[in-house]
Amino acid sequence: MNEFALIGDIAQALGNSATAPWVHVGIGDDAAVLQPRAGFDAVASIDTLVADVHFPMSAPAELIGYRALMVSLSDLAAMAALPRYALVALTLPELGGQISTQWVQQLAQGMAMAAADTGTALCGGNLTKGALSISVSVHGEVEQGQAKLRSSGEPGQRLFVTGALGGAAACLRQQQHLSVAPDALSAMQDAYYRPQARFDCRPDIQAASCAIDISDGLLQDLNHVLQASGCGADLRAAAIPLGAGATLEDALSGGDDYQLLFASAEPGTAGVCIGELSSEPGLRLDGKDVEIHGYQHFSA
Amino acid sequence: MNEFALIGDIAQALGNSATAPWVHVGIGDDAAVLQPRAGFDAVASIDTLVADVHFPMSAPAELIGYRALMVSLSDLAAMAALPRYALVALTLPELGGQISTQWVQQLAQGMAMAAADTGTALCGGNLTKGALSISVSVHGEVEQGQAKLRSSGEPGQRLFVTGALGGAAACLRQQQHLSVAPDALSAMQDAYYRPQARFDCRPDIQAASCAIDISDGLLQDLNHVLQASGCGADLRAAAIPLGAGATLEDALSGGDDYQLLFASAEPGTAGVCIGELSSEPGLRLDGKDVEIHGYQHFSA
Repeated sequence: MNEFALIGDIAQALGNSATAPWVHVGIGDDAAVLQPRAGFDAVASIDTLVADVHFPMSAPAELIGYRALMVSLSDLAAMAALPRYALVALTLPELGGQISTQWVQQLAQGMAMAAADTGTALCGGNLTKGALSISVSVHGEVEQGQAKLRSSGEPGQRLFVTGALGGAAACLRQQQHLSVAPDALSAMQDAYYRPQARFDCRPDIQAASCAIDISDGLLQDLNHVLQASGCGADLRAAAIPLGAGATLEDALSGGDDYQLLFASAEPGTAGVCIGELSSEPGLRLDGKDVEIHGYQHFSA
Repeated sequence: MNEFALIGDIAQALGNSATAPWVHVGIGDDAAVLQPRAGFDAVASIDTLVADVHFPMSAPAELIGYRALMVSLSDLAAMAALPRYALVALTLPELGGQISTQWVQQLAQGMAMAAADTGTALCGGNLTKGALSISVSVHGEVEQGQAKLRSSGEPGQRLFVTGALGGAAACLRQQQHLSVAPDALSAMQDAYYRPQARFDCRPDIQAASCAIDISDGLLQDLNHVLQASGCGADLRAAAIPLGAGATLEDALSGGDDYQLLFASAEPGTAGVCIGELSSEPGLRLDGKDVEIHGYQHFSA
């Protein structure tokens, strides 16, 4: 199995998800060539998932692949963008043992499922040798000038989340990630392994004043919005929707659910209202100042 | 030093290279937002550089950063595209020892130099903890339908390279990469540490029938063109331009120079003619069949 044969196997596992009408040139040349949509801005983000930091090595490869693409796409959903394509840079240890050709194919199949679920074309990538990690560059489009930023929140606007929080953190806390059968996930395992980039909430995000995806925990990500928007916020603990098995602490400080947080002055959103933006600086839960905990690399 | 402070340091080190007139939203939101150019296709590629595989850990961080961006951009040059922006996903071990905050800033400064040299905006990225590696997603634009593919070569067309080959391989072979002073590189060290994405050769690539960048060695990369184009080739050893200190073997099988290889029926190119495409399958050097050696991951 050489590098180019393995790329061929991956392309085969991706099947139809490697292409789309807007992909003029896909896998197999120096670069992919894409047709931009007139009247739209390009939206782009990159994420790296490292083995045993962002996913357990022991997890089924299919779920690792599914999760890797979805959590990366989530950044596009938070901008009110629609997904178009992704590039995947895969760093693999020497094949053999746990990481076999079959493992790589299953990883690609999982990515292909997430691609199919979102209408994303997996049209390019890179394969190299090293400690197992997956870098995914994701690319979408949004109507010109309509990207939703973190910086446009204003005091008085209500804060919403697109769904239940803390389920993924509960899965990790209860070590439910250690034993997983892909076709029979518990609700907690589903929260961790099958996060959904919330493109289905796009009308709410388009109508919002600002948005962010919750990757590092509600408090920490809300704090990014507060700093960018120059305001404070009041949250109501009882209003925060909890995922299966989740405690309030899981919901406040656990990342990994990839729901969207947004502020809106519009009525009629499908989101769950959890509080308001305030002209009073700081972040309060039920009127009490809160300290912000959330996932950080290099926190030492 | 926490994650967000380090991102701030990196943004500062990038300075003006983080932005450009076509960057509407840069570092600091969920994703970057870019203005596409009307009448152009998007061209996209991703590469990962792993410590001690693609660069020596002991090298000055500034040169590692410069090289990382340039070798990634080279794929865009090979498509006849102009660079627009790049996203950088940096995986770093725990800070301390060799990898300090200062090291990271120098890496960013090196990338900023390559960005300035090419007109690329470094408008987004990701920071995570793990074994040192750098994934770079590069994005350019080419006039609609004018991307230069590997598959359009035809028998009878002459083969050209944009410059001397083998210098980078000679640098590695002679272990000149072990002791490097950034402001006094030997010619060999320059070939390895300061490869240039050959956007300056764009008129020749636009006039060519097909093109590829030489990242894995002349023979191996030419073989990709031959397979994609369905033809063979004849090379003349004496015509192949050798880099400083390079042997013919360095030039044939050493990667890392990042010159472009192209086939053209047009006269008047600035490239160096090294042979012709042929209707006779296979690859010959001075009339003799050659075996193809070049860099491969997972070759076992």
